[in-house]
This record gives sequence, structure tokens and C-alpha cells, in this order.
Amino acid sequence: MIEKKLFFDVKEDREVIKKAYERMLREKEEGITGYYDLPVNQEDVIEEINDYIHNNEYLSKNLIKDLVIIGIGGSSLGTRAIDTLLKFSHNRNIVNIHFLENLDPLYLINSIKEIDLQKAFIVIISKSGTTIETISIAKYIFWLLKDPLKGLDIEKKIAIITDKESPLDRLAKEKRWKVFYIPKNVGGRFSVLSPVGLFPLAVLGYDIKELLAGANIIREEFLNQGMDMLLFKKAYYYFKHAKEKNINILFSYSSMFEAFNKWYIQLWGESLGKKNERGERVGLTPIGLIGSIDQHSFLQLIVEGPKDKTVTFLKLKNFELPVTVPHLSLPYLETTDFVNGRRFQTIINTQCDATMESVIKADVPVDLIEINELNERSTGYLIYYFELLTSALGAMLGIDTYNQPGVEMSKMLLRQKLSK
Amino acid sequence: MIEKKLFFDVKEDREVIKKAYERMLREKEEGITGYYDLPVNQEDVIEEINDYIHNNEYLSKNLIKDLVIIGIGGSSLGTRAIDTLLKFSHNRNIVNIHFLENLDPLYLINSIKEIDLQKAFIVIISKSGTTIETISIAKYIFWLLKDPLKGLDIEKKIAIITDKESPLDRLAKEKRWKVFYIPKNVGGRFSVLSPVGLFPLAVLGYDIKELLAGANIIREEFLNQGMDMLLFKKAYYYFKHAKEKNINILFSYSSMFEAFNKWYIQLWGESLGKKNERGERVGLTPIGLIGSIDQHSFLQLIVEGPKDKTVTFLKLKNFELPVTVPHLSLPYLETTDFVNGRRFQTIINTQCDATMESVIKADVPVDLIEINELNERSTGYLIYYFELLTSALGAMLGIDTYNQPGVEMSKMLLRQKLSK
Repeated sequence: MIEKKLFFDVKEDREVIKKAYERMLREKEEGITGYYDLPVNQEDVIEEINDYIHNNEYLSKNLIKDLVIIGIGGSSLGTRAIDTLLKFSHNRNIVNIHFLENLDPLYLINSIKEIDLQKAFIVIISKSGTTIETISIAKYIFWLLKDPLKGLDIEKKIAIITDKESPLDRLAKEKRWKVFYIPKNVGGRFSVLSPVGLFPLAVLGYDIKELLAGANIIREEFLNQGMDMLLFKKAYYYFKHAKEKNINILFSYSSMFEAFNKWYIQLWGESLGKKNERGERVGLTPIGLIGSIDQHSFLQLIVEGPKDKTVTFLKLKNFELPVTVPHLSLPYLETTDFVNGRRFQTIINTQCDATMESVIKADVPVDLIEINELNERSTGYLIYYFELLTSALGAMLGIDTYNQPGVEMSKMLLRQKLSK
Repeated sequence: MIEKKLFFDVKEDREVIKKAYERMLREKEEGITGYYDLPVNQEDVIEEINDYIHNNEYLSKNLIKDLVIIGIGGSSLGTRAIDTLLKFSHNRNIVNIHFLENLDPLYLINSIKEIDLQKAFIVIISKSGTTIETISIAKYIFWLLKDPLKGLDIEKKIAIITDKESPLDRLAKEKRWKVFYIPKNVGGRFSVLSPVGLFPLAVLGYDIKELLAGANIIREEFLNQGMDMLLFKKAYYYFKHAKEKNINILFSYSSMFEAFNKWYIQLWGESLGKKNERGERVGLTPIGLIGSIDQHSFLQLIVEGPKDKTVTFLKLKNFELPVTVPHLSLPYLETTDFVNGRRFQTIINTQCDATMESVIKADVPVDLIEINELNERSTGYLIYYFELLTSALGAMLGIDTYNQPGVEMSKMLLRQKLSK
């Protein structure tokens, strides 16, 4: 389903890898983070989501036109990543999805203009329940809905996803709004396989069981093959060379990966940029590129710039859409005819191969992830793969992979400046 | 109009700055690159564009529904950047713009589905005239249009933007399609203020004279203040610390900067990632972030991760859209009430200030660009500012800022692999 290859040599230190693997098992067993077991411990959650959708005629009869996600960061990136990747599949309901996240007024107002609030289903997602962007936008939407609120049957057109006992949970209970809970020990950027992603994705029609089943395939590999997984080799290389190769590029060959890249950037950047046990500032900087577009933008820097980067190529293999470049020879443009009659997918995949070859020749460490079928199952696998890789690296770097203390000061200063 | 501040100390080496400034003047005078004078030498071009639009009833009477840009990299990033930034302004015609760039078939086919080809105006942009993505997509569109091509009045619904005498120019002349020329010495990533950007932007209704006038304000500063511009201080700092601070972040506080960030990434990455005069691989890695969204994604890495980054904050100041957070106090959520009654713009700007303060406290070099009015003039200024900064840095690094030899091998390998 998903194949992985490394194109660089790794002189492993088995002790470092063993320690990291053991720490990960400990994180899982002690519940330091809850994401490891999301693929297997959510049967109740899936039933709850499916029952809720089944019993809500707006959702089960597809009476809504717009699905509005109010949430920022880990509350929206995962859903957006998966929907952007799979949106052309047959499962997908015909519903417009809108992500309201930024307070930027022009953008916000114009995004809201595109929503038919009378025919919308609103999902408010905030782990803490007090995220300032999310609550402010929710207030604005409530204010817009104010007059016709009663006629709107709002109780059936809103759901909340938050931590149990959060202020938002309490509000929702008072208002009798549906609430789905995020496990306490699952942080925002690791939460896409919890209700944070599962509920909106189920509303969109995706098979969330398959998503979890795909994640569980690599979870099983992790538990059974353990430290022999290729993933640990790669993590070790990144760890060993973290100082001189401080930039990790994900070069995804399809525009459908645009949002997935952003999800990866949050996961990687926010998890790994930390002070380690000795108080040193460590971390690796993620960059997301789209092929072939960024061959015309960023490739030059990879090939001739400093050797401070690693590159992971992501490719959709065996993707049989029979759309071809027509057999059309244009006067003066005969030099472009070598692609005539070729499938577009063949060309973009060959672009990936050619670029990968040129990057390897430039002595940049490269690995390749090939996806054979694009569906819920392979997407779940891919999500969990990057989560595991992040955990492995975090363990090697000796940091707390799951917190984000560095963002608190900015929140505190905001409150201070605006409370005056 | 645009204010700039540095929040870090620079111990300038005036000799290095002087040498860079002199090289830039030489680049301008000798025509090594033609972008420097685009704000002042295109009166004919503007007249030609305006005349063409005036005399083409599809454009002058706004009879088209879709504007289709077929072009990749420098042929599309600039137009997209400016349109995304200004699209909510009054000047903007109600036309859907579509950028067809990636060969990714699912994405391409679904993008084309949204176009009403009978009511579309098509612009094909390729400097060389043989860009494989661009020509392949153009062929596909021609093939779709084939049957009704005559009834379509296609000659009036297509324009070509390319180098004089390129294969695409020759084809266009044979077909009697309108052609606008890119000056030979203006490369793709520096071409947005040439017809590459000017023509599509004029079709969209923007005031392209104002765009150039804005660019000319800073061009004049460059010619008059010379090496005393703050820009040279900043460039010198980046140059001096290029090895240990190899990552330059542009943190733009509005979702409307999404495409502008991508334009910056191409400009910076492709210009500065090079082998220098001594054959050493040099370069600086650009990253684009959007505030406040990426406070929830990347900020942690900036604040607690390695000190390998500089950050430029970009902020829309005095931006008076009177949309406020309603005076709505929700039970249990009273801690979020400190923003009630505040304008959204005030909150996002204060988020920018707060984040900037926290990044400065984390000992990361920060500078700030504040835009007082968002319009064609300030946008032109901003574009030219980043182009100058890129040239200054390229001069200091001792590289050819305007070529991209590193991307050739991947093109050659593609041809080799597909010609079999």
C-alpha cells in the first residue's frame, strides 16, 4: 500500500534507537500521549459519531449545504489535510467545507459571505475550550445568527469538540449542544485521528473506520517489528545530523498534498522545536513543497544551495487516471512533443523521479514514500507514519515532544495588551 | 505608506555594502537584469495593454466569466500574489481567475471543470515558450476546445506572454494571437512588474500604473539614498550570519498574504541558492508563515528551537474595517471577554505585536514591515522592496542572482526518461 526507500547510508547506533523505541513504548503504556492507541480504542467513538449522524436528519439526509469548522492549528489542519487529499473520491458528500480560523477581518467576512448560514452545520473545535480566535469567531457567528436563532433549529446544527470539563464543554452542556471529547492526553497536532478529525470527516462522508484501520497497520508494524522499522533508521540519521542538516523538506508530487504539507509542518515544527533535557535549544525545521510546481521555485536552492537539507519525496504511484496529453503537435513547439500521448500522471511521476535523481546527485539525503492507492486506508497509514517519525525523533532529541511552552508568552502578552 | 524597523544590531561593514550597492547599479546600467527599470520604462507596454483591453469587447465589456492563466513558477506566482492580496478591493472585476500549472491529473481535471471554456479568456505564459507543464496543459485545453474552436472567436480570447522570437511567439504569430513580450533580461521570478503580471492584473481591473508608481517610490529611494537604505543593513546582517542563521521567515499577519509568501519563497530561494564565485554552495532558505494561524503551528520552533532563523513580520496597519467581536459574554467563557468590542483588525495586529515581542525576547533577529494602506501602490512598493533585498544579498554572497542552473538536470532527465 505504501512503500518506503532510503537513498542515503545510515551508520546506526542501535543503542540510541533502542532507547528511543523503549521511550515510545513507555509513552504509549503510561499514556504520556494518547495518540498511539487511537486506531484501536475508539470503537465507542465511531459508534457515537455514526449514531449521531444517522439520527440527525440534517446530516443523514444531506440537508446541509455548508460544513463550517471553527478551529485553528491542530483543530483544523488535520481535517483539511485529509479532505484536500481525498476530496475527489466517490465517498465525499457534496457539501462545501469552510474553515474559519484567522481573525483577519477582510478574509473572515468574505469567507462567511460564502456560507449559507441557514443551511450550515457548525463545528466548534478547541481543546482548551478558550482559544481566542475560535471563541471570537464563534461569537461573531452567534451574533450573525442571533435573530433567527430559534427558527434555525440550532441545537441540531452545531457540535462541539473539546476536552471534557473545558469551559466550552460546560457552555455546550448548558445549551444542550452535542459534544465530542478529545482524550485529555492527545494534543492538538496529534489529534486528527480523534473526534477532532473523525467527526467532520464522517460528516463529509469518508469512511473513518478505514482511516483508523490504515493507521493501525503501521501501529502493528511498530509494535511487532519495533526498532527494525526503516523509520528508525531515518529518524536516527535526522537526529545525528540535526545541527548541520537542520531543514527537512517534504516534497509532495500532487497539488492535493497542499494541506497535508501544512499538517506535517505543524506536527514537525511544534513537536521538535524545544529545549532539551540540558536546556539547549534543539529542533528541525519542516518545509512543505508541491511537485512539480516547486521545481520552478525551490529546487535550485536544494540542488546548489548549502547542504543543510534532507528531502522526502511523496508520490502517488499506480494512480490510473486515463487523462493524457493529446497527440497534438504545434508548429515551432515540436520539442515538447515527447510527452504527447503520455498520461499526465506518468509525466508528473517521472518528474518526481527525475528531480529525485538530480537531488541525490547533488549529494542531498533523499528518501521516497510511494502511495499505491489513495484512499482512507493509505491516508490513515501516512498520518500515523509521520506521527511515529516525530515521536522517534523527539525521543532521540531528549525533548518533550507533546507540549508547546514557547507559545504561551505571546498569548499572555496579547491579553496584557488588550486588557488595558 | 510602508514603514520598516529593525530590532537587531548590525555592525556594518560599509565596504561590503558599498561593493554590493555598486554591483547593483552596474546590474541596472549594464542591463544584466532588466527588473530595476520596469517601473519607468514601460509606458508603451501600459498603453498597449490598455488599448488591447479597450478594443477587445470580451474584456472591455466584461463578457468573460473566467480568466485562465496557464503558467508555472514565475509565470503565475506574482499575479496570484497580487490578486490574493487585493482581491477584495473595489477595482477588482468580477471574474473568476484560474491558475493551471500542475500536471497532477485529478487536480487539473477538476480545476478545468470549474471553467466555462465558452466564456473564458486564456493567457498562456512561458518565458522560454517551451515550459513542459504549460505547453502540455495548453494542448489539453486546445484539444477540449477543438470542435467549437471556430465558433469560439478564439483569436480574441487568448493572449500569449513570452520572450520575443520564442517558439511560442512564433506559434502565436502564425495563429494571429495577441502576444505581449517579456524583456529578455527579466527572469521569471523578477517578472511580475512586466507584462507577465501587468496584463492579467489589468484584465482583473487593477490599476497597473499605480503598481509601477509604488515600485518606483522605492526605486527612487534606492537611487537617491543608495547604500544608506535600511535594506542594506538588513541584507548585510543576513549575509554575515548566513551560515548559522540559514533560515529567513516571512511572518505575514493576514491570510491574504498566502500567495505573496509563495512569491517571496521563489524569489529568495531560487535567487540565492547558488554556487558562489569560489564554487561553494551558498544560500538562504525562505519560509512563509501566516499570522495568527501559524502561531498555532510554527511559533514554538521559532521561540524554543535552534537560533538558526531570522523573522520578518509583515503587518497591515491602520486598516479600518469596522468589524468587531460582539459584546457577547458566554457562560463559562468569560476569560475570553477581554476582546469583546475590539475590532478584529486590532486583535490580529496586537497578536502580531505580542508574538514579535516574544520572538525578540527569545533572542531571534526580528524586523517589521508595516503597510499603512493596502492598494496597488503599496503592493508595488512591497514587491520591489523584496526584489532589491534579494539583489543586495546576491551581490554580497558573490553569486549570480538571476540564473537557475540547478534545475536543468531534472528537466534533462525528464526528457531522457520519457523519450525512451
